[in-house]
Amino acid sequence: MSQPHESDRLIRGRQALAAIDGEAGEKVISALADIAPDFATYLLEFPFGDIYSRPGLDLRSRETATIAALTAMGTAPAQLKVHIEAGLNVGLSREEIVEIIMQMAVYAGFPAALNGLFVAREAFTAREGNAETST
Amino acid sequence: MSQPHESDRLIRGRQALAAIDGEAGEKVISALADIAPDFATYLLEFPFGDIYSRPGLDLRSRETATIAALTAMGTAPAQLKVHIEAGLNVGLSREEIVEIIMQMAVYAGFPAALNGLFVAREAFTAREGNAETST
Amino acid sequence: MSQPHESDRLIRGRQALAAIDGEAGEKVISALADIAPDFATYLLEFPFGDIYSRPGLDLRSRETATIAALTAMGTAPAQLKVHIEAGLNVGLSREEIVEIIMQMAVYAGFPAALNGLFVAREAFTAREGNAETST
Amino acid sequence: MSQPHESDRLIRGRQALAAIDGEAGEKVISALADIAPDFATYLLEFPFGDIYSRPGLDLRSRETATIAALTAMGTAPAQLKVHIEAGLNVGLSREEIVEIIMQMAVYAGFPAALNGLFVAREAFTAREGNAETST
Amino acid sequence: MSQPHESDRLIRGRQALAAIDGEAGEKVISALADIAPDFATYLLEFPFGDIYSRPGLDLRSRETATIAALTAMGTAPAQLKVHIEAGLNVGLSREEIVEIIMQMAVYAGFPAALNGLFVAREAFTAREGNAETST
Amino acid sequence: MSQPHESDRLIRGRQALAAIDGEAGEKVISALADIAPDFATYLLEFPFGDIYSRPGLDLRSRETATIAALTAMGTAPAQLKVHIEAGLNVGLSREEIVEIIMQMAVYAGFPAALNGLFVAREAFTAREGNAETST
Repeated sequence: MSQPHESDRLIRGRQALAAIDGEAGEKVISALADIAPDFATYLLEFPFGDIYSRPGLDLRSRETATIAALTAMGTAPAQLKVHIEAGLNVGLSREEIVEIIMQMAVYAGFPAALNGLFVAREAFTAREGNAETST
Repeated sequence: MSQPHESDRLIRGRQALAAIDGEAGEKVISALADIAPDFATYLLEFPFGDIYSRPGLDLRSRETATIAALTAMGTAPAQLKVHIEAGLNVGLSREEIVEIIMQMAVYAGFPAALNGLFVAREAFTAREGNAETST
Repeated sequence: MSQPHESDRLIRGRQALAAIDGEAGEKVISALADIAPDFATYLLEFPFGDIYSRPGLDLRSRETATIAALTAMGTAPAQLKVHIEAGLNVGLSREEIVEIIMQMAVYAGFPAALNGLFVAREAFTAREGNAETST
Repeated sequence: MSQPHESDRLIRGRQALAAIDGEAGEKVISALADIAPDFATYLLEFPFGDIYSRPGLDLRSRETATIAALTAMGTAPAQLKVHIEAGLNVGLSREEIVEIIMQMAVYAGFPAALNGLFVAREAFTAREGNAETST
Repeated sequence: MSQPHESDRLIRGRQALAAIDGEAGEKVISALADIAPDFATYLLEFPFGDIYSRPGLDLRSRETATIAALTAMGTAPAQLKVHIEAGLNVGLSREEIVEIIMQMAVYAGFPAALNGLFVAREAFTAREGNAETST
Repeated sequence: MSQPHESDRLIRGRQALAAIDGEAGEKVISALADIAPDFATYLLEFPFGDIYSRPGLDLRSRETATIAALTAMGTAPAQLKVHIEAGLNVGLSREEIVEIIMQMAVYAGFPAALNGLFVAREAFTAREGNAETST
């Protein structure tokens, strides 16, 4: 991981993660430090340094896609919460996020949408606790 | 299904389906005629008459969400193809659709993204065969 | 949502929800009030007002299908618990519910069935706490 | 597999498979002969000799559960087709099978239900080709 | 379950479960006693008496396969934890287990791998609490 | 993609892909050329240049994990076929591959294992057609 030629992706990934996920992203990275530090590097490099840094799709659309997919899959509520906060960070309104999640009832069933909405409520409440506002 | 008070949703659903999915949507509805005609009605009413007709999220974002979810789930390639065509219909470029699908490698794995890309190629090719252009 | 022409489905949905899910259903509806009140309406209208109110399949069979599907999917334990209670409400015995869940080991694997059985124990215990009897 | 003490389960499994799945079950067993003959034995013993032979749930309800689960999962259309035929064999009507599958739109999304309905049409048509009637 | 001819599989299953899962396996079996005792028997007989007792694949490889599958599926974290401990019991090192889980990012996405790593940390920590060492 | 500092991962990825997947891997890469050439680069870099090139787990174990996960997921039969061939390339016997797939009946259900076995038969047959031998 310390090869000098990889640092561009890593630096770009750290910047993208900070811009998109804020503190929540940092927590995931540091949570990996004792168990799988290389995985933290990969997480910065590929999803953030490579994919989220590509110019062909704006971050609002990228978070729309991620919130939709994680709601539909239903197996990663913690990551869904991080990306709902990320959606707010990159300009999605609460209303838009609720619309995305409700729409998943059509593709993944009502329980998936319901569980997604309850995660959204947690994310919105956490944000209020931080005296932040959105929408 | 013939209760007069339900016709608004049905009419709205037919209009939304025509605007979003075009002929591909019509084919799904008529394919249901012999096996489950009521399901065709529900499909027009709830997904299209209710959800896609809501004002809180633009159709571009709705198709972004659907393409992402169906790519991530990996169990409905025929419906993914219909929604890739729908994405083009409501203003997504081919490049944007490819970006949405590639991003799913992060959330649902490389095989899900690969299979999504192959469905996109089919959808793009079918469109060219129809002498239509996009992007 | 207050359009007069939708009230039949809503009324029918509320009645079906009350008959099938009892208090557990009411809790889900009120839990949606602050985050997505329209989704509560859709939940009453489509699953309960449309699907569960159809005459072609008895409620015992409908809950058999739902308990099986939610056990197999494994992503919605809270909704599985509600539908195990609903199964008891519409005439399934505890023994039958345990049989349905055990059978899912064949189609979705032993962990899915195990997790379903642990949800069933919670549902059965909650019911005893309410001094209700079944089977 | 040839231990004499296991023959009861195997015999019971063969009888259950013949009663439930008919020829379609036999085909699956013989398709395994060259690649994994022991798996054919397990398939007869555990799902059919153990689970489907248990007295606590009637075969109609067991096939209701299986059709629901396989529709919701969406990853095994060939097995879903076999169990739709099995459902007809043990007394479910075509209308009931269509109801079970449509209901899955609520729990697993509209594409899962749509794909299940198309499998049902194939199963119903194949049966007509055999000059058999049902419903 | 008390038929004398089934005891070989049951005995073999109990031995395999004890050798592979140790106390964690025993806990699962006794947790089933009140809700579905027959399912405990099936769990000993088929997965452990039949599959894990087959000679064609060593236990290290069997646990590699199980850890990979449960990480990828993401619906059974409790069972994944048991099998991470089982992996240590049959000779996988912590490093190897972390590699297996990280690799699942490729096939099931980064959230699945992340959640698997967090389960692994719990399993490793629990083991240290028991003053056991591995790797 | 042409930045000189990324060439190490790309070169390492190409070598790993060739060693593991042989021609089947090359076909996937070239199939991406017209629709998403950057995704081909990512596929070489992250799964093959990063993950499969890590020293902490031998390739036999890596393919065991991948075959297990893809069988359990059931959504990527084409990729499962490639990795069954890859398993043979890195030293797994046909018997071992069949054992891995059969074991998935325990974790993901009998239909997932059945479908995996049918993919294995295709992969084994294709290999014989190439006059290659294994096991």
